[in-house]
Amino acid sequence: MLSGKTCRLVGRVKSCVVKPLACLFTSSKMAKSKYEYVRNFETDDTCLRNCYIVVRLDGRNFHRFAEQHKFTKPNDNRALGLMSRSARSVMEELEDIVIAYGQSDEFSFVFKRSSTWFKRRASKLMTHVASQFSSSYVYYWKEFFADQPILYPPSFDGRVILYPSNRNLRDYLSWRQADCHINNLYNTVFWTLVQKGGLTTAQAEDRLKGTLAADKNEILFSEFDINYNNESALHRKGTTLIWEKRDETVTKRMKPPDEEKKHVPVTRSRRRVQAYHCDIIGDQFWEEHPDILEDDNC
Amino acid sequence: MLSGKTCRLVGRVKSCVVKPLACLFTSSKMAKSKYEYVRNFETDDTCLRNCYIVVRLDGRNFHRFAEQHKFTKPNDNRALGLMSRSARSVMEELEDIVIAYGQSDEFSFVFKRSSTWFKRRASKLMTHVASQFSSSYVYYWKEFFADQPILYPPSFDGRVILYPSNRNLRDYLSWRQADCHINNLYNTVFWTLVQKGGLTTAQAEDRLKGTLAADKNEILFSEFDINYNNESALHRKGTTLIWEKRDETVTKRMKPPDEEKKHVPVTRSRRRVQAYHCDIIGDQFWEEHPDILEDDNC
Amino acid sequence: MLSGKTCRLVGRVKSCVVKPLACLFTSSKMAKSKYEYVRNFETDDTCLRNCYIVVRLDGRNFHRFAEQHKFTKPNDNRALGLMSRSARSVMEELEDIVIAYGQSDEFSFVFKRSSTWFKRRASKLMTHVASQFSSSYVYYWKEFFADQPILYPPSFDGRVILYPSNRNLRDYLSWRQADCHINNLYNTVFWTLVQKGGLTTAQAEDRLKGTLAADKNEILFSEFDINYNNESALHRKGTTLIWEKRDETVTKRMKPPDEEKKHVPVTRSRRRVQAYHCDIIGDQFWEEHPDILEDDNC
Amino acid sequence: MLSGKTCRLVGRVKSCVVKPLACLFTSSKMAKSKYEYVRNFETDDTCLRNCYIVVRLDGRNFHRFAEQHKFTKPNDNRALGLMSRSARSVMEELEDIVIAYGQSDEFSFVFKRSSTWFKRRASKLMTHVASQFSSSYVYYWKEFFADQPILYPPSFDGRVILYPSNRNLRDYLSWRQADCHINNLYNTVFWTLVQKGGLTTAQAEDRLKGTLAADKNEILFSEFDINYNNESALHRKGTTLIWEKRDETVTKRMKPPDEEKKHVPVTRSRRRVQAYHCDIIGDQFWEEHPDILEDDNC
Repeated sequence: MLSGKTCRLVGRVKSCVVKPLACLFTSSKMAKSKYEYVRNFETDDTCLRNCYIVVRLDGRNFHRFAEQHKFTKPNDNRALGLMSRSARSVMEELEDIVIAYGQSDEFSFVFKRSSTWFKRRASKLMTHVASQFSSSYVYYWKEFFADQPILYPPSFDGRVILYPSNRNLRDYLSWRQADCHINNLYNTVFWTLVQKGGLTTAQAEDRLKGTLAADKNEILFSEFDINYNNESALHRKGTTLIWEKRDETVTKRMKPPDEEKKHVPVTRSRRRVQAYHCDIIGDQFWEEHPDILEDDNC
Repeated sequence: MLSGKTCRLVGRVKSCVVKPLACLFTSSKMAKSKYEYVRNFETDDTCLRNCYIVVRLDGRNFHRFAEQHKFTKPNDNRALGLMSRSARSVMEELEDIVIAYGQSDEFSFVFKRSSTWFKRRASKLMTHVASQFSSSYVYYWKEFFADQPILYPPSFDGRVILYPSNRNLRDYLSWRQADCHINNLYNTVFWTLVQKGGLTTAQAEDRLKGTLAADKNEILFSEFDINYNNESALHRKGTTLIWEKRDETVTKRMKPPDEEKKHVPVTRSRRRVQAYHCDIIGDQFWEEHPDILEDDNC
Repeated sequence: MLSGKTCRLVGRVKSCVVKPLACLFTSSKMAKSKYEYVRNFETDDTCLRNCYIVVRLDGRNFHRFAEQHKFTKPNDNRALGLMSRSARSVMEELEDIVIAYGQSDEFSFVFKRSSTWFKRRASKLMTHVASQFSSSYVYYWKEFFADQPILYPPSFDGRVILYPSNRNLRDYLSWRQADCHINNLYNTVFWTLVQKGGLTTAQAEDRLKGTLAADKNEILFSEFDINYNNESALHRKGTTLIWEKRDETVTKRMKPPDEEKKHVPVTRSRRRVQAYHCDIIGDQFWEEHPDILEDDNC
Repeated sequence: MLSGKTCRLVGRVKSCVVKPLACLFTSSKMAKSKYEYVRNFETDDTCLRNCYIVVRLDGRNFHRFAEQHKFTKPNDNRALGLMSRSARSVMEELEDIVIAYGQSDEFSFVFKRSSTWFKRRASKLMTHVASQFSSSYVYYWKEFFADQPILYPPSFDGRVILYPSNRNLRDYLSWRQADCHINNLYNTVFWTLVQKGGLTTAQAEDRLKGTLAADKNEILFSEFDINYNNESALHRKGTTLIWEKRDETVTKRMKPPDEEKKHVPVTRSRRRVQAYHCDIIGDQFWEEHPDILEDDNC
């Protein structure tokens, strides 16, 4: 009785004769070629050439993750250090990343305009970044949290954004750093009110409703004698990672001609990932590191 | 002398008056709103409705990773177990995944047709899967490799593929299982020739050049008394993960009306991820699990 | 003084050494190969396989076009005839279109699931349809409008939508026919109130505010003795175009063996585009034309 | 008997309960809202911001069209004039097009970087251009071909390409003009050999096999006394359309205060589409028209 395998759709069915879709293939023979047509369903997601490719990762449910792992408020230096360590792991794997910027539970990675990694396929770029970052986060956990165990594997989601000009890219990075500033100023005042001012979190929230940046600075200064600008640059500015050439001198045992073997200092130039906690909105940072961006007129 | 850094565009430059791009914004004021236009560069990558969404992960440079971590040949059950454990971690986070299939260093995750997770945004789906899988891989490592340490954080890349019909989806899964079969048969014979037959890897490669499946089965059977069909189903068929409802009975201490407190067995139906190592090319598996696929005519 | 046109990018410019972008190419030599890299900026827009491809065209500013060409209200049969004639011209050029549906100033064209026209490139499909339709509209104008000249070249915009299942496709076509019904019922009552009832257009609009379909039918019937269901099917149902095989008999002069030349009737089966003005929401139409749709389970 | 409407797919079917897909809707009621979910299958194809949007049209089967309408060889000025006239019609409809370039049966239209026409939706932009061009081609035919009738409606296909920088855009236009040059030089020599040299087309093809530009120039000069550089600029350089401001003086009859009515000349500045047949590869054209391109640093 075949009716079980028959597809009755009277009135809107045409038998499918167009492609050899292995419709009748029910034996257990492993005729792989019969199925390979399914590869054609993959779509091309190549990123437009001559644009910066930004991959941004955001922690998923990190509010809960932070609670459960007792992150200190308003900032946990161990957690921020682990984020940067994981980001560095990504940069060292993907050398076409020219700059990365992170704050809180997010990190943005910028591939150079002319990059051809993974043939500029968006899906490959963002999954590789997300994967490398996440495995690194767990791998390096104990370097930052010592004996405090990680309770479950965290996850990050990602996205790809393209920027056609240097101005657009710098405005993107400025946007993220301005976000860091706004959040950190708020959190600093909020937790000062709670931790030093003895307010409940609800009271602190109330107190800050409708305040501007100047008001918040004033609260810190007049009530708690805190000058916000003297707070940690790591917290106020986030973390910027770039490649820098450094001369490294190592001692090698060599044998010069007509001499005996001896220890010789050898200096090599090596690219290393360097971290900054400075303003990247103004021009100074970019003037001091002219190699990060490529000319718009390419 | 700055002229080397000056970009001369004589005759083809128009001043940019169109958008307020914060061109002159160099103070340290954090006017976030000036930069927010950069959000409009994000593109929509929503997956077509009413299609199965497949996310496939592939290990990056896993040949090297396997070497360095001394995976046994041709299959390492610890590594396969860790892959499945990580995949289960993904399924438990993303409940719209109706089936997952893995073999070697790859795993495919199938979201149900009608899923609205992350509004069906491809980038979110694939990065979340890649991230959760990767952090889980490191997190659960010691459950499978005990005291052998993981030497560096591994990574996986991912992709998204859409399948409009049940037939297409089943053919995709058949394609992956056929790939498992072909590779495992080859590897089984190859490593038997090396490990039991005393051939070098080059000799084994030579010996297998041009052989068909039947030839390989014959080598195993006549020379090594091995019936390939009796080999481990895990190796021959890979791992299929699906959700299954199981009744779970727990004992609770309760107080029935007009009675004293006592221990009462309570049975609840719970969905759990279940692993299979069976054929998923033929109809039997699908007939036995009619809830995995949704009707084509939706 | 050229400085006004100079673009200073001090501190964020890197000279572009990455690609040979013909940066210095200012002679008039026609070195085409230097520029061909620009082809790589084209993106692939292949439509997902095994989905119906719908191209819908909509008239641009057709309210104005109708005014200026004195289309009769609420429907102009010449204009509707020209739309159908142009749609037929598209179908005859693109034989993979299995059904087309039009009403008012819009027309939808459905490519079969398995179509490989233009390698399923969305841009090619929709521009070809838009172009062929538009040139046909002007070309066939005089067949429908006789001596009334066309005053300016009209335009239509288009879009591509993919439907994975027969149900989705039928629901799309039902959506367009329901739209036709709702608009035509409204317009019929509106213009009857104006043309026969003597209301101004503002009064007619007021009168119809908040009315349901039943109310509108009642106005037509009780006040103007019009049974809406007896109105022209062309207006109520729009136009559906499909391919049909017809036997065509032509007389040919032939010479049978051992006979003299004589006129012989020859019957051939030919595919022709056929127009219907019937319900395509219910099952009957689809049961009577089982060849339009392909099986979902392909 | 309901079996005709039953969909039997034993073993791989789950009833579809997820969405109200109007599965059971078979009456003729026009419940439009039930079908509107199909709108969600449309995908967003917004073009990346801050990039030039190029729409290029190519004639379909224009070899045949040219044959049937007896276009002169190697160039038909009527046909080229009609192409330009149609392109002008497109530019006048879509004022964000800052430059258009055409040759042979192709025309490219460049939207300014900051354009927001149709919300930068690629499908709308390219279909509108293709449609307006095609209807104009038929509409203006008789202005160029006088009494020679157009035999059937022609069609053009289109595509969209994005360019992030001025350099990329200029290289694109250079690529098309270099293509014009190469084809026109070949065609000029080929048809001179046939028309004046008495060769068959096969002989002419043979003669030109492997020749370089210099060789072709030499054939023209030494054998036919033709200096290629004196040939028509329209044929050698194609047609470039840009917007130009022109002062237009019209005479109006006005009544100045305390005077009688009299004819007064009134001068206004108007944008008009202007055609050029000049080199657009070198810098001169761009230096003379600095308003076409926007600054890269936006």
